[in-house]
Amino acid sequence: MKPLQNDTFLRALRRQPTDYTPVWMMRQAGRYLPEYRASRKHAGSFMQLCTSPSFATEVTLQPLERYPLDAAILFSDILTVPDAMGLGLYFEEGEGPKFERTLQQEEDIQALQVPDMAKLHYVFDAVSSIRQALDGRVPLIGFAGSPWTLATYMIEGKGGTDFLTAKKMAYARPDLLHHLLNITAQTVTQYLNAQIAAGAQAVMIFDSWGGALSHDAYQRFSLAYMQTIVAGLTKTAAGEPVPCIVFTKGGGLWLESQAAIGADALGVDWTVDLGEAKRRVGHQVALQGNMDPAILLSTPAAIEAEVARILASYGHGHGHVFNLGHGITQWTPPEHAHALIQAVKTMSPAYHQA
Amino acid sequence: MKPLQNDTFLRALRRQPTDYTPVWMMRQAGRYLPEYRASRKHAGSFMQLCTSPSFATEVTLQPLERYPLDAAILFSDILTVPDAMGLGLYFEEGEGPKFERTLQQEEDIQALQVPDMAKLHYVFDAVSSIRQALDGRVPLIGFAGSPWTLATYMIEGKGGTDFLTAKKMAYARPDLLHHLLNITAQTVTQYLNAQIAAGAQAVMIFDSWGGALSHDAYQRFSLAYMQTIVAGLTKTAAGEPVPCIVFTKGGGLWLESQAAIGADALGVDWTVDLGEAKRRVGHQVALQGNMDPAILLSTPAAIEAEVARILASYGHGHGHVFNLGHGITQWTPPEHAHALIQAVKTMSPAYHQA
Repeated sequence: MKPLQNDTFLRALRRQPTDYTPVWMMRQAGRYLPEYRASRKHAGSFMQLCTSPSFATEVTLQPLERYPLDAAILFSDILTVPDAMGLGLYFEEGEGPKFERTLQQEEDIQALQVPDMAKLHYVFDAVSSIRQALDGRVPLIGFAGSPWTLATYMIEGKGGTDFLTAKKMAYARPDLLHHLLNITAQTVTQYLNAQIAAGAQAVMIFDSWGGALSHDAYQRFSLAYMQTIVAGLTKTAAGEPVPCIVFTKGGGLWLESQAAIGADALGVDWTVDLGEAKRRVGHQVALQGNMDPAILLSTPAAIEAEVARILASYGHGHGHVFNLGHGITQWTPPEHAHALIQAVKTMSPAYHQA
Repeated sequence: MKPLQNDTFLRALRRQPTDYTPVWMMRQAGRYLPEYRASRKHAGSFMQLCTSPSFATEVTLQPLERYPLDAAILFSDILTVPDAMGLGLYFEEGEGPKFERTLQQEEDIQALQVPDMAKLHYVFDAVSSIRQALDGRVPLIGFAGSPWTLATYMIEGKGGTDFLTAKKMAYARPDLLHHLLNITAQTVTQYLNAQIAAGAQAVMIFDSWGGALSHDAYQRFSLAYMQTIVAGLTKTAAGEPVPCIVFTKGGGLWLESQAAIGADALGVDWTVDLGEAKRRVGHQVALQGNMDPAILLSTPAAIEAEVARILASYGHGHGHVFNLGHGITQWTPPEHAHALIQAVKTMSPAYHQA
């Protein structure tokens, strides 16, 4: 395999000097791209894209063919993990993901076990296949959902906004929820380590629903388990440490505590002023973010103005990975994504000069 | 009309000494109460409860019959305002509120006008009727939605989570959105002043969706218009200033700027540590909040523990109004709401001793 030709993203995660601010977009392989929609039609379904290493490789590389991105991210879904834990993931057309079974009864939760990672071989095969196909162009990011986020799906059986059943358990039966989170954290640790063994060069933990918790419950039920995972991450086969990004959507109030769990970088959404975030976390971590993906629906001029604002807010210095604060929406015109990436490439070098 | 017998809530909003921490619950007149469900069945629909002063009075007083609450809040809906602005509010069973018309075209937005307040007479009649019925027991809170929050409904035609159309306008046509927000802010100011004239003793501005904006867009598209409203509020007929509470759900990152717009108190949700919030806003404003309503689904013991934690977090001193961080859910057992209120009454006096 060729050596890595563009390590800007990995260097930024380690807060090392770079010539410009690296950029990638969450959900960059997605429905806004006509070539993705064609692949999905060909594959038949979203899950068939995920479970076929060749399809997963194809769609992972599509945005890299269009844009000068600084990282690729494994095409997969955070819900592969609860599916492997026996909950029965399925998708209904026009609705979000759902599970055939939920974990609400004590006996079901007590019976939960870390699954055999062989059930997730299709993910690790996809990682190997994508690494091969990337041929050293840019680093490949592996990922998983946070234990709390996965637990909300496992308890509620679907995505939600209020998470009333999961929260009821958090307050009425914290022992049960902690058991569920503990098994899930062990599973996610093994899952990310298997992705690293297969070739992932950075990993990201998506805590999509941590922001729904109280500041106090967040520490106990979400952050603590992400800390466990970060502490359990292994190095690459070559003995290199693998940078880890932790992203709690809606977690901007808690950056200080997030910065202390040992991750290399924090994802931040658009509710946070990036300069203020940088001041709050100091030199502990790099920051990744934070444009509102809704802005990509506006105009190239507005997109460029927002890129300029975000770069200026972070200011001079290294340790910033430009990204959106959430996945790119399916209604984004592909040329608007291009305007974003081009603006970062054009304007960011000024912030990296000595 | 009898003089006010319990001014604890109003004193706390003004950061004056009180004997205990006053408490009320957002959406305290609601579906979790069997007597509310009976009234709604009798009235026929939610909107018939709102538009009938006698029904609105009946349901407003129901929670006060059960619990020793320190404030009543007008039973109404924030969407009465866009309805009066001509958008055609309707409710479909099992779905959220919707509008027959949306504001997306330039000519429709330019044609928007401040409506005749006579269209909202049923709200002001309800305020008068409730004041009469309260007979001085506790103060009555009037309320309105924030211009940004109302604008999201007017632009999207329904509630949302991403607000992509409204945000697209914010970035592609900020002039149009500012026009819409300006007309709406004038309308809300007149609306709250008419509630004050009818007898409201405090007012609250609900910025339910301000937290979806970027930190930068929040200041321009939400907070600035709430500041306009606060500055335009009139005194009571007796010449008393009327305390105003501003609540941006999910706006905990921006408390400092919220505290500077001239409101008496800020609502805070459960993502914020109340002691930290108190430190951040200093003596500028009182704070109202901030228990996660999901906790009311758990157990009386867990509810009491959380009340104790929140009271201890705010600590000694005045200026705290105990509340939830969002409306009480319909699945709350009424005795759990009682446990919350009783716990505040029992534990809070210790924090108000000299």
